[in-house]
Amino acid sequence: MKNIIIASTSTIHGSGYLEYILDELTLLYKDTEEILFVPYARPSGITHDAYTEIATKAFIKINKRIVGLHTFKNPIEAVQNAQGIFVGGGNTFVLTNMLYKNNLINVLSQVVNKGTPYLGTSAGSNICGLTIRTTNDMPIVYPPSFDALKLVSFNINPHYLDPDSKSKHMGETRETRIKEFHKFNTQPVVGLREGSWLQVKNNTITLKGNLSARIFEVNKTPYEVETGTKLNDLK
Amino acid sequence: MKNIIIASTSTIHGSGYLEYILDELTLLYKDTEEILFVPYARPSGITHDAYTEIATKAFIKINKRIVGLHTFKNPIEAVQNAQGIFVGGGNTFVLTNMLYKNNLINVLSQVVNKGTPYLGTSAGSNICGLTIRTTNDMPIVYPPSFDALKLVSFNINPHYLDPDSKSKHMGETRETRIKEFHKFNTQPVVGLREGSWLQVKNNTITLKGNLSARIFEVNKTPYEVETGTKLNDLK
Repeated sequence: MKNIIIASTSTIHGSGYLEYILDELTLLYKDTEEILFVPYARPSGITHDAYTEIATKAFIKINKRIVGLHTFKNPIEAVQNAQGIFVGGGNTFVLTNMLYKNNLINVLSQVVNKGTPYLGTSAGSNICGLTIRTTNDMPIVYPPSFDALKLVSFNINPHYLDPDSKSKHMGETRETRIKEFHKFNTQPVVGLREGSWLQVKNNTITLKGNLSARIFEVNKTPYEVETGTKLNDLK
Repeated sequence: MKNIIIASTSTIHGSGYLEYILDELTLLYKDTEEILFVPYARPSGITHDAYTEIATKAFIKINKRIVGLHTFKNPIEAVQNAQGIFVGGGNTFVLTNMLYKNNLINVLSQVVNKGTPYLGTSAGSNICGLTIRTTNDMPIVYPPSFDALKLVSFNINPHYLDPDSKSKHMGETRETRIKEFHKFNTQPVVGLREGSWLQVKNNTITLKGNLSARIFEVNKTPYEVETGTKLNDLK
Protein backbone atom coordinates (compact mmCIF):
# COMPACT_ATOMS: atom_id res chain seq x y z
CA MET A 1 0.00 0.00 0.00
CA LYS A 2 3.02 2.32 -0.06
CA ASN A 3 2.53 5.64 -1.85
CA ILE A 4 5.77 7.58 -1.65
CA ILE A 5 7.80 10.13 -3.58
CA ILE A 6 11.49 10.27 -2.74
CA ALA A 7 12.80 13.43 -4.42
CA SER A 8 16.44 14.44 -4.79
CA THR A 9 15.67 18.10 -4.12
CA SER A 10 12.79 20.47 -3.37
CA THR A 11 14.00 23.02 -5.88
CA ILE A 12 15.74 22.84 -9.24
CA HIS A 13 17.90 25.67 -10.51
CA GLY A 14 15.87 28.61 -11.84
CA SER A 15 12.54 27.35 -10.53
CA GLY A 16 10.39 27.91 -7.42
CA TYR A 17 10.04 25.68 -4.37
CA LEU A 18 8.56 22.29 -5.45
CA GLU A 19 7.46 23.85 -8.77
CA TYR A 20 9.00 21.15 -11.00
CA ILE A 21 7.10 18.37 -9.26
CA LEU A 22 3.67 19.91 -8.49
CA ASP A 23 1.81 17.81 -11.10
CA GLU A 24 3.16 14.67 -9.49
CA LEU A 25 2.20 15.93 -6.04
CA THR A 26 -1.38 16.55 -7.19
CA LEU A 27 -1.56 12.83 -7.95
CA LEU A 28 0.24 11.74 -4.75
CA TYR A 29 -2.09 13.76 -2.56
CA LYS A 30 -5.27 13.37 -4.63
CA ASP A 31 -7.27 12.19 -1.58
CA THR A 32 -5.50 14.51 0.87
CA GLU A 33 -6.87 17.92 1.83
CA GLU A 34 -4.42 18.64 4.63
CA ILE A 35 -0.77 17.60 4.63
CA LEU A 36 1.25 17.19 7.83
CA PHE A 37 4.54 19.00 7.24
CA VAL A 38 7.65 17.92 9.15
CA PRO A 39 9.87 21.04 9.36
CA TYR A 40 12.51 19.45 11.62
CA ALA A 41 15.41 19.60 9.10
CA ARG A 42 15.46 23.42 9.27
CA PRO A 43 17.41 24.40 6.11
CA SER A 44 19.87 27.21 6.93
CA GLY A 45 18.64 26.86 10.51
CA ILE A 46 15.33 28.66 9.89
CA THR A 47 12.54 28.22 12.43
CA HIS A 48 9.85 25.56 12.18
CA ASP A 49 7.28 28.30 11.62
CA ALA A 50 9.25 29.98 8.84
CA TYR A 51 9.82 26.65 7.12
CA THR A 52 6.15 25.68 7.38
CA GLU A 53 5.26 28.99 5.75
CA ILE A 54 7.43 28.10 2.73
CA ALA A 55 5.68 24.76 2.35
CA THR A 56 2.27 26.38 2.80
CA LYS A 57 2.90 28.81 -0.06
CA ALA A 58 3.93 26.02 -2.42
CA PHE A 59 0.96 23.78 -1.65
CA ILE A 60 -1.63 26.54 -1.97
CA LYS A 61 -0.97 26.25 -5.72
CA ILE A 62 -2.49 22.77 -5.73
CA ASN A 63 -5.16 23.61 -3.12
CA LYS A 64 -3.67 21.71 -0.21
CA ARG A 65 -3.55 22.93 3.38
CA ILE A 66 -0.31 22.51 5.31
CA VAL A 67 -0.06 22.05 9.06
CA GLY A 68 3.30 21.93 10.84
CA LEU A 69 4.09 18.90 13.02
CA HIS A 70 5.71 21.24 15.57
CA THR A 71 2.30 22.79 16.34
CA PHE A 72 0.92 19.55 17.84
CA LYS A 73 1.18 18.71 21.53
CA ASN A 74 1.28 15.02 20.67
CA PRO A 75 3.35 14.53 17.51
CA ILE A 76 2.90 10.73 17.53
CA GLU A 77 -0.87 11.14 17.30
CA ALA A 78 -0.44 13.83 14.65
CA VAL A 79 1.50 11.37 12.48
CA GLN A 80 -1.05 8.60 13.13
CA ASN A 81 -3.94 10.85 12.11
CA ALA A 82 -2.28 12.49 9.09
CA GLN A 83 -3.98 12.22 5.69
CA GLY A 84 -0.63 12.89 4.01
CA ILE A 85 2.91 13.67 5.10
CA PHE A 86 5.70 15.85 3.68
CA VAL A 87 9.19 15.82 5.21
CA GLY A 88 11.18 18.77 3.89
CA GLY A 89 14.92 19.03 3.30
CA GLY A 90 17.62 20.72 5.36
CA ASN A 91 20.07 18.99 7.65
CA THR A 92 19.61 15.21 7.83
CA PHE A 93 21.28 14.94 11.26
CA VAL A 94 19.02 17.60 12.75
CA LEU A 95 15.97 15.93 11.20
CA THR A 96 16.92 12.43 12.36
CA ASN A 97 17.76 13.65 15.84
CA MET A 98 14.35 15.32 16.22
CA LEU A 99 12.54 12.23 14.92
CA TYR A 100 14.29 10.09 17.54
CA LYS A 101 13.78 12.61 20.34
CA ASN A 102 10.04 12.65 19.60
CA ASN A 103 9.84 8.83 19.20
CA LEU A 104 8.60 9.23 15.64
CA ILE A 105 10.80 6.82 13.69
CA ASN A 106 8.62 3.75 14.16
CA VAL A 107 5.27 5.46 13.84
CA LEU A 108 6.30 7.30 10.66
CA SER A 109 7.51 4.06 9.14
CA GLN A 110 4.28 2.28 10.14
CA VAL A 111 1.84 4.81 8.71
CA VAL A 112 3.74 5.17 5.45
CA ASN A 113 3.95 1.40 5.07
CA LYS A 114 0.18 1.29 5.60
CA GLY A 115 -0.46 3.82 2.83
CA THR A 116 -0.32 7.39 4.12
CA PRO A 117 1.02 9.35 1.11
CA TYR A 118 4.57 10.57 1.83
CA LEU A 119 6.77 13.11 0.07
CA GLY A 120 10.41 13.49 1.05
CA THR A 121 12.82 15.99 -0.45
CA SER A 122 16.59 15.91 0.18
CA ALA A 123 16.96 15.17 3.93
CA GLY A 124 13.35 13.96 3.87
CA SER A 125 14.45 11.49 1.19
CA ASN A 126 17.62 10.41 2.95
CA ILE A 127 15.54 9.09 5.83
CA CYS A 128 13.53 6.85 3.48
CA GLY A 129 16.57 4.58 3.08
CA LEU A 130 17.94 1.98 5.47
CA THR A 131 20.28 4.48 7.14
CA ILE A 132 21.31 8.12 6.80
CA ARG A 133 24.92 7.04 6.23
CA THR A 134 24.90 8.40 2.65
CA THR A 135 23.76 11.92 3.45
CA ASN A 136 25.85 14.83 2.16
CA ASP A 137 25.11 16.93 5.21
CA MET A 138 27.38 18.20 7.94
CA PRO A 139 26.96 16.30 11.24
CA ILE A 140 26.09 19.41 13.25
CA VAL A 141 24.19 17.42 15.90
CA TYR A 142 24.67 13.84 17.16
CA PRO A 143 21.54 11.71 16.67
CA PRO A 144 20.95 8.58 18.81
CA SER A 145 21.33 6.40 15.70
CA PHE A 146 21.93 6.64 11.95
CA ASP A 147 19.15 4.09 11.28
CA ALA A 148 16.34 5.51 9.18
CA LEU A 149 12.76 4.71 8.15
CA LYS A 150 13.73 1.75 5.92
CA LEU A 151 10.86 2.40 3.48
CA VAL A 152 13.08 1.04 0.69
CA SER A 153 15.77 -1.65 0.85
CA PHE A 154 18.67 0.58 -0.11
CA ASN A 155 20.18 3.97 0.76
CA ILE A 156 19.54 7.30 -0.95
CA ASN A 157 22.15 9.86 -1.96
CA PRO A 158 20.18 12.97 -2.91
CA HIS A 159 21.63 15.91 -4.85
CA TYR A 160 23.87 13.37 -6.59
CA LEU A 161 26.73 15.21 -8.26
CA ASP A 162 29.04 13.93 -11.00
CA PRO A 163 32.79 14.43 -10.54
CA ASP A 164 34.09 17.70 -12.00
CA SER A 165 37.05 16.69 -14.16
CA LYS A 166 38.36 20.27 -14.19
CA SER A 167 38.40 20.68 -10.40
CA LYS A 168 41.71 21.19 -8.63
CA HIS A 169 40.07 20.55 -5.27
CA MET A 170 41.43 17.47 -3.51
CA GLY A 171 38.35 16.71 -1.37
CA GLU A 172 36.63 13.42 -2.21
CA THR A 173 34.14 13.23 -5.08
CA ARG A 174 30.67 11.91 -4.33
CA GLU A 175 31.52 8.65 -6.10
CA THR A 176 34.63 8.21 -3.93
CA ARG A 177 32.55 8.77 -0.81
CA ILE A 178 29.94 6.20 -1.77
CA LYS A 179 32.67 3.69 -2.63
CA GLU A 180 34.10 4.26 0.87
CA PHE A 181 30.59 3.64 2.23
CA HIS A 182 30.69 0.22 0.58
CA LYS A 183 33.84 -0.75 2.45
CA PHE A 184 31.73 -0.68 5.62
CA ASN A 185 28.13 -1.27 4.43
CA THR A 186 26.53 -3.67 1.95
CA GLN A 187 23.23 -2.12 0.82
CA PRO A 188 22.95 -0.46 -2.61
CA VAL A 189 22.91 3.33 -2.91
CA VAL A 190 20.79 5.26 -5.41
CA GLY A 191 22.47 8.50 -6.48
CA LEU A 192 19.50 10.74 -7.36
CA ARG A 193 20.34 13.78 -9.46
CA GLU A 194 18.47 17.03 -8.85
CA GLY A 195 15.15 16.86 -10.72
CA SER A 196 14.88 13.07 -10.30
CA TRP A 197 12.63 11.20 -7.89
CA LEU A 198 11.64 7.67 -7.00
CA GLN A 199 7.95 6.86 -7.06
CA VAL A 200 7.11 3.98 -4.70
CA LYS A 201 3.66 2.49 -5.28
CA ASN A 202 3.04 -0.68 -3.31
CA ASN A 203 6.15 -2.71 -4.20
CA THR A 204 6.92 -0.94 -7.46
CA ILE A 205 9.78 1.57 -7.36
CA THR A 206 10.16 3.69 -10.51
CA LEU A 207 12.78 6.31 -11.37
CA LYS A 208 11.04 9.48 -12.59
CA GLY A 209 12.12 12.88 -13.93
CA ASN A 210 14.27 13.65 -16.97
CA LEU A 211 17.62 12.34 -15.80
CA SER A 212 19.25 8.98 -15.27
CA ALA A 213 20.29 7.89 -11.77
CA ARG A 214 23.56 6.30 -10.71
CA ILE A 215 23.40 3.00 -8.83
CA PHE A 216 26.15 1.83 -6.52
CA GLU A 217 26.22 -1.81 -5.44
CA VAL A 218 28.91 -3.37 -3.29
CA ASN A 219 31.67 -5.00 -5.38
CA LYS A 220 30.15 -3.80 -8.68
CA THR A 221 31.08 -1.00 -11.04
CA PRO A 222 28.57 1.86 -10.58
CA TYR A 223 26.02 2.04 -13.40
CA GLU A 224 23.38 4.36 -14.82
CA VAL A 225 19.66 3.59 -15.01
CA GLU A 226 17.37 5.56 -17.30
CA THR A 227 14.20 7.30 -16.18
CA GLY A 228 11.29 4.84 -16.09
CA THR A 229 13.48 2.01 -14.79
CA LYS A 230 11.97 -0.17 -12.07
CA LEU A 231 14.18 -0.68 -9.01
CA ASN A 232 11.95 -3.21 -7.24
CA ASP A 233 14.70 -5.80 -6.90
CA LEU A 234 17.45 -3.49 -5.69
CA LYS A 235 18.44 -4.64 -2.19
CA MET B 1 54.40 22.43 25.26
CA LYS B 2 52.12 21.72 22.30
CA ASN B 3 53.84 21.18 18.95
CA ILE B 4 51.19 20.54 16.34
CA ILE B 5 50.52 21.03 12.65
CA ILE B 6 46.88 20.98 11.61
CA ALA B 7 46.89 20.78 7.81
CA SER B 8 43.89 21.21 5.52
CA THR B 9 45.07 18.46 3.18
CA SER B 10 47.89 15.95 2.68
CA THR B 11 48.18 16.75 -1.00
CA ILE B 12 47.75 19.87 -3.08
CA HIS B 13 46.78 19.70 -6.75
CA GLY B 14 49.68 18.70 -9.02
CA SER B 15 52.02 17.75 -6.18
CA GLY B 16 52.98 14.51 -4.38
CA TYR B 17 51.77 13.27 -1.00
CA LEU B 18 52.84 15.77 1.74
CA GLU B 19 55.33 17.32 -0.71
CA TYR B 20 54.21 20.93 -0.18
CA ILE B 21 54.79 20.75 3.56
CA LEU B 22 57.94 18.60 3.92
CA ASP B 23 60.15 21.53 5.02
CA GLU B 24 57.76 22.29 7.83
CA LEU B 25 57.64 18.61 8.81
CA THR B 26 61.43 18.50 9.05
CA LEU B 27 61.12 21.18 11.73
CA LEU B 28 58.15 19.60 13.49
CA TYR B 29 59.89 16.23 13.75
CA LYS B 30 63.47 17.49 14.22
CA ASP B 31 63.97 15.35 17.35
CA THR B 32 61.95 12.42 16.03
CA GLU B 33 63.49 9.43 14.24
CA GLU B 34 60.40 7.26 14.15
CA ILE B 35 56.85 8.55 13.67
CA LEU B 36 53.79 6.62 14.81
CA PHE B 37 51.34 6.68 11.91
CA VAL B 38 47.61 6.37 12.58
CA PRO B 39 46.10 4.87 9.40
CA TYR B 40 42.58 4.47 10.78
CA ALA B 41 40.86 6.96 8.44
CA ARG B 42 41.49 4.66 5.43
CA PRO B 43 41.04 7.03 2.44
CA SER B 44 39.04 5.26 -0.30
CA GLY B 45 38.81 2.35 2.14
CA ILE B 46 42.42 1.19 1.57
CA THR B 47 43.97 -1.14 4.16
CA HIS B 48 45.98 0.04 7.13
CA ASP B 49 49.08 -1.56 5.58
CA ALA B 50 48.60 0.10 2.20
CA TYR B 51 48.04 3.47 3.84
CA THR B 52 51.10 3.12 6.06
CA GLU B 53 53.15 2.36 2.95
CA ILE B 54 52.07 5.70 1.41
CA ALA B 55 53.15 7.58 4.54
CA THR B 56 56.43 5.63 4.69
CA LYS B 57 57.35 6.66 1.13
CA ALA B 58 56.72 10.33 1.86
CA PHE B 59 58.72 10.41 5.09
CA ILE B 60 61.73 8.58 3.64
CA LYS B 61 62.42 11.89 1.82
CA ILE B 62 63.14 13.59 5.17
CA ASN B 63 64.78 10.50 6.70
CA LYS B 64 62.02 9.55 9.10
CA ARG B 65 60.88 5.99 9.79
CA ILE B 66 57.14 5.33 9.91
CA VAL B 67 55.49 2.63 11.99
CA GLY B 68 51.76 1.91 11.74
CA LEU B 69 49.67 2.02 14.92
CA HIS B 70 47.72 -1.03 13.69
CA THR B 71 50.87 -3.18 14.04
CA PHE B 72 50.96 -2.79 17.85
CA LYS B 73 49.23 -5.23 20.20
CA ASN B 74 48.75 -2.42 22.70
CA PRO B 75 47.89 0.78 20.83
CA ILE B 76 47.55 2.83 24.05
CA GLU B 77 51.17 2.04 24.95
CA ALA B 78 52.25 2.74 21.38
CA VAL B 79 50.76 6.24 21.62
CA GLN B 80 52.31 6.80 25.05
CA ASN B 81 55.76 5.79 23.80
CA ALA B 82 55.65 7.58 20.45
CA GLN B 83 58.36 10.15 19.64
CA GLY B 84 56.04 11.75 17.11
CA ILE B 85 52.55 11.12 15.73
CA PHE B 86 50.94 11.55 12.32
CA VAL B 87 47.21 11.02 11.83
CA GLY B 88 46.44 10.77 8.11
CA GLY B 89 43.28 11.82 6.27
CA GLY B 90 40.42 9.75 4.96
CA ASN B 91 37.01 9.37 6.56
CA THR B 92 36.63 11.28 9.83
CA PHE B 93 33.83 9.02 11.10
CA VAL B 94 35.87 5.88 10.49
CA LEU B 95 38.89 7.47 12.18
CA THR B 96 36.93 8.72 15.20
CA ASN B 97 35.16 5.40 15.59
CA MET B 98 38.46 3.48 15.65
CA LEU B 99 39.99 5.93 18.15
CA TYR B 100 37.02 5.38 20.49
CA LYS B 101 36.98 1.59 20.01
CA ASN B 102 40.66 1.47 20.97
CA ASN B 103 40.24 3.91 23.88
CA LEU B 104 42.73 6.29 22.31
CA ILE B 105 40.96 9.66 22.51
CA ASN B 106 42.18 10.60 25.98
CA VAL B 107 45.71 9.23 25.66
CA LEU B 108 46.24 10.92 22.30
CA SER B 109 45.05 14.21 23.70
CA GLN B 110 47.30 13.80 26.78
CA VAL B 111 50.54 13.04 24.94
CA VAL B 112 50.03 15.82 22.40
CA ASN B 113 49.24 18.30 25.17
CA LYS B 114 52.48 17.21 26.86
CA GLY B 115 54.56 17.87 23.74
CA THR B 116 54.65 14.85 21.44
CA PRO B 117 54.86 16.40 17.95
CA TYR B 118 51.63 15.82 16.04
CA LEU B 119 50.73 16.21 12.38
CA GLY B 120 47.14 15.90 11.23
CA THR B 121 45.94 16.15 7.65
CA SER B 122 42.28 16.45 6.68
CA ALA B 123 40.44 13.91 8.93
CA GLY B 124 43.53 13.96 11.17
CA SER B 125 43.00 17.72 11.46
CA ASN B 126 39.26 17.52 12.03
CA ILE B 127 39.87 15.57 15.22
CA CYS B 128 42.13 18.34 16.61
CA GLY B 129 39.06 20.52 17.14
CA LEU B 130 36.45 20.35 19.88
CA THR B 131 34.19 18.07 17.85
CA ILE B 132 34.06 16.47 14.40
CA ARG B 133 30.76 18.23 13.69
CA THR B 134 32.33 20.32 10.91
CA THR B 135 33.77 17.46 8.88
CA ASN B 136 32.90 17.26 5.18
CA ASP B 137 32.89 13.47 5.22
CA MET B 138 30.08 11.02 4.70
CA PRO B 139 28.90 9.37 7.95
CA ILE B 140 29.58 5.82 6.74
CA VAL B 141 29.99 4.46 10.29
CA TYR B 142 28.40 5.58 13.60
CA PRO B 143 31.03 6.56 16.19
CA PRO B 144 30.20 6.53 19.94
CA SER B 145 30.55 10.32 20.05
CA PHE B 146 31.39 13.30 17.84
CA ASP B 147 33.67 14.74 20.55
CA ALA B 148 37.27 15.07 19.41
CA LEU B 149 40.75 15.67 20.84
CA LYS B 150 40.09 19.31 21.79
CA LEU B 151 43.69 20.35 21.11
CA VAL B 152 42.41 23.77 20.06
CA SER B 153 39.37 25.69 21.34
CA PHE B 154 37.50 25.77 18.05
CA ASN B 155 36.47 23.45 15.23
CA ILE B 156 38.30 22.80 11.98
CA ASN B 157 36.77 22.67 8.50
CA PRO B 158 39.53 21.27 6.26
CA HIS B 159 39.45 21.44 2.44
CA TYR B 160 37.55 24.70 2.85
CA LEU B 161 35.89 25.55 -0.44
CA ASP B 162 34.52 28.92 -1.56
CA PRO B 163 31.02 28.99 -3.09
CA ASP B 164 30.98 28.56 -6.87
CA SER B 165 28.86 31.44 -8.14
CA LYS B 166 28.36 29.67 -11.50
CA SER B 167 27.07 26.45 -10.03
CA LYS B 168 23.52 25.35 -10.77
CA HIS B 169 23.67 22.71 -8.07
CA MET B 170 21.21 23.30 -5.24
CA GLY B 171 23.11 21.41 -2.52
CA GLU B 172 24.33 23.62 0.34
CA THR B 173 27.60 25.56 0.02
CA ARG B 174 30.25 25.04 2.67
CA GLU B 175 29.47 28.45 4.14
CA THR B 176 25.77 27.59 4.42
CA ARG B 177 26.66 24.35 6.19
CA ILE B 178 28.88 26.09 8.74
CA LYS B 179 26.22 28.72 9.34
CA GLU B 180 23.76 25.88 10.06
CA PHE B 181 26.36 24.45 12.47
CA HIS B 182 26.21 27.74 14.38
CA LYS B 183 22.47 27.40 14.91
CA PHE B 184 23.28 24.41 17.16
CA ASN B 185 26.88 25.00 18.34
CA THR B 186 28.76 28.04 19.64
CA GLN B 187 32.46 27.41 19.03
CA PRO B 188 34.28 29.18 16.17
CA VAL B 189 35.17 27.27 13.00
CA VAL B 190 38.36 27.77 11.01
CA GLY B 191 37.85 27.10 7.29
CA LEU B 192 41.30 25.97 6.15
CA ARG B 193 41.87 26.08 2.40
CA GLU B 194 44.01 23.39 0.76
CA GLY B 195 47.66 24.36 1.20
CA SER B 196 47.03 26.12 4.53
CA TRP B 197 47.85 24.82 7.97
CA LEU B 198 47.75 25.90 11.58
CA GLN B 199 50.98 25.70 13.54
CA VAL B 200 50.35 25.28 17.26
CA LYS B 201 53.43 25.93 19.42
CA ASN B 202 52.65 26.03 23.12
CA ASN B 203 49.75 28.47 23.20
CA THR B 204 50.57 30.24 19.94
CA ILE B 205 48.41 29.30 16.96
CA THR B 206 49.59 30.68 13.61
CA LEU B 207 48.01 30.40 10.17
CA LYS B 208 50.65 29.22 7.67
CA GLY B 209 50.82 28.59 3.91
CA ASN B 210 50.07 30.99 1.07
CA LEU B 211 46.35 31.44 1.49
CA SER B 212 44.02 33.25 3.84
CA ALA B 213 41.61 31.28 6.03
CA ARG B 214 37.93 31.95 6.66
CA ILE B 215 36.76 32.29 10.24
CA PHE B 216 33.20 31.64 11.32
CA GLU B 217 32.03 32.83 14.72
CA VAL B 218 28.52 32.54 16.04
CA ASN B 219 26.41 35.66 15.35
CA LYS B 220 29.22 37.32 13.35
CA THR B 221 29.75 37.81 9.64
CA PRO B 222 32.44 35.33 8.46
CA TYR B 223 35.81 37.00 7.88
CA GLU B 224 39.19 36.31 6.29
CA VAL B 225 42.50 36.18 8.14
CA GLU B 226 45.80 36.45 6.28
CA THR B 227 48.63 33.96 6.56
CA GLY B 228 50.77 34.72 9.61
CA THR B 229 47.76 35.71 11.71
CA LYS B 230 47.74 34.47 15.31
CA LEU B 231 44.55 32.72 16.38
CA ASN B 232 45.44 32.31 20.08
CA ASP B 233 42.32 34.06 21.31
CA LEU B 234 39.82 32.31 19.07
CA LYS B 235 37.44 30.39 21.31
